[in-house]
Amino acid sequence: MIKVVLLGSGNVAYHLAKAFEQTKDIDFVQQYRRNSKNDKLFNESIPKTNSLENLAKADIYIIAINDDQILEFSKKLKLREGLVVHTSGSVPMDTLKCKCHKGVFYPLQTFSMVQQIDYMNIPICLETEYVEDMPLLKHFAEAISKNIYEVNSNQREKLHIAAVFANNFSNYMFKIAKDICEENHCSFDILKPLIQETVNKIQDISPEEAQTGPAKRKDKKIIDKHLSQLSGDQKKIYKLISKSISKSYQ
Amino acid sequence: MIKVVLLGSGNVAYHLAKAFEQTKDIDFVQQYRRNSKNDKLFNESIPKTNSLENLAKADIYIIAINDDQILEFSKKLKLREGLVVHTSGSVPMDTLKCKCHKGVFYPLQTFSMVQQIDYMNIPICLETEYVEDMPLLKHFAEAISKNIYEVNSNQREKLHIAAVFANNFSNYMFKIAKDICEENHCSFDILKPLIQETVNKIQDISPEEAQTGPAKRKDKKIIDKHLSQLSGDQKKIYKLISKSISKSYQ
Repeated sequence: MIKVVLLGSGNVAYHLAKAFEQTKDIDFVQQYRRNSKNDKLFNESIPKTNSLENLAKADIYIIAINDDQILEFSKKLKLREGLVVHTSGSVPMDTLKCKCHKGVFYPLQTFSMVQQIDYMNIPICLETEYVEDMPLLKHFAEAISKNIYEVNSNQREKLHIAAVFANNFSNYMFKIAKDICEENHCSFDILKPLIQETVNKIQDISPEEAQTGPAKRKDKKIIDKHLSQLSGDQKKIYKLISKSISKSYQ
Repeated sequence: MIKVVLLGSGNVAYHLAKAFEQTKDIDFVQQYRRNSKNDKLFNESIPKTNSLENLAKADIYIIAINDDQILEFSKKLKLREGLVVHTSGSVPMDTLKCKCHKGVFYPLQTFSMVQQIDYMNIPICLETEYVEDMPLLKHFAEAISKNIYEVNSNQREKLHIAAVFANNFSNYMFKIAKDICEENHCSFDILKPLIQETVNKIQDISPEEAQTGPAKRKDKKIIDKHLSQLSGDQKKIYKLISKSISKSYQ
C-alpha cells in the first residue's frame, strides 16, 4: 500500500480524498489543512493536522492548494523523504521549493463540491523530477484512474490552456445561449439535447469534421442577420468566432 | 395515420425519414427530391418523385431543403390542400409563398449523415399560421419526439442564434483545444473527459454556476501567461472571451 498525505481541503482535495477511500491500494494516512472549516466534508477517521511540523511519514505528499500559494507553501515543507507533488495544471514542477523529490499529479478535470465524479475516468498527467520516482507515482495514480499520461511541464501548461478553451470557454458559450433564450422567454432546456449531441459527436469524429453552422458555410446573409440582433459582448464574440471559423474552412 | 410527403434529400430529410419509419402513426407516402443522388440512403419502398406536379395527397408536406431556397421553392408548390411546413431555424414562416396553410417544424439539433441520433430526444419547435392547424402538427411531431415546443418566428430566430453559440461556437472551442494539443504532441483524448463533464454539469446546474477558470477568478497572472503563449485568432478569442467572463462575474 502506498502511504499518502493530502495537503489541502478544497475542491481538488475533496475529490481526491473520495477517490482514496475507494481503493485498497492507497493508505490515506493524514490530511493537512489550515483550519477545520471543511472538516465535515472529509472522512472523520482520517487523522488531520494544521501543523506542517507534524506531518506523518508517507511515500507521497500531494499539495492540493491554490496555484499562487504553491511556491511559498512548498518552502515551509521540511520533509527530507517522500515524493512531493502538486496538482496544478499551470504551475511548473520546479516551483516546488522543498528539499525532497518533486513531481506533479495533475487531474485534468473540472471540480466542484456539488458534482460527484468518477475518478476512474479522469486523465491524470504525471511528471517527476527523477525518472526513478515515476513508477511509484504511476502505480499510485493507477489505483484511482485508468487514464494516466506522462506529460512534461511545458506540455502541461499547454494542456491547461487547451482546457480553458475546452471547458471554460465552451461553458461560456452555453451561458450566452442561455441568456439569449431567457431574454426571449424560451427555456434553455430546448438547447440541452443539442449541447449533448455536440459533445457526443466529437467522441467519434474530430471537431473539424463536426463543425456546422453559418460561419462554416460562409453564409454571410445569416451571419449579418444574427449580428444585427446582437449587441455588446455577444455581438463581438459572434463576429470574432464566425470570422475565425470561416477562415479555417477556406 | 397522418399522411406526410417529405420534400428534400439532405441531412435533415434523411433523419426525418428514419424517424418516420420508426412510428406507426405516420404514413410516409412520398419523397420529392430534385435528383436521385441520395436515393440509396432512403428506404426504397417509399415512392419518389422529382416532379412538383406529381405530389401525392397528404396531410402534411415537409420542406427540408437549404434555407435560401425555401422562398423560391415554395412559390412552385401548387398545393391547395394540406399543411406546408419548413424545417428551418432561421427562416420566418411567412417566407413560405404557397397558397395553402403554412407552418414550421424545426428540429433543433445538429445533423450529419454519419451520426445516428434518437429523434425521440430532439426538441421540435412548432408554429402554424392558423391556430386550428396546431393540433395536427403537434400530433404529428409527438409521433417522433417527446420534446415539443410551440415557438413563434421571432423566438425561433433567437433560438437559432442561441444554438449557434451552444453548438457551432462550443465545437469551435473544442477545435482550438485540439489544435493546441496537437501542436504540443499531446493527445486530444486527454481532454475528452473534461469536455464530457462540462456538459454533464449543466444538466444539473446553470452555466453561470458551472463556470470556472482563470477569467472567472480574475487571475490576471495566469491569463497574461496564457496570452503570451498564444497568437493569431487563438489569442484574440482567448482575450475577448476572458474579458467577457471576468465582466459578467463582477
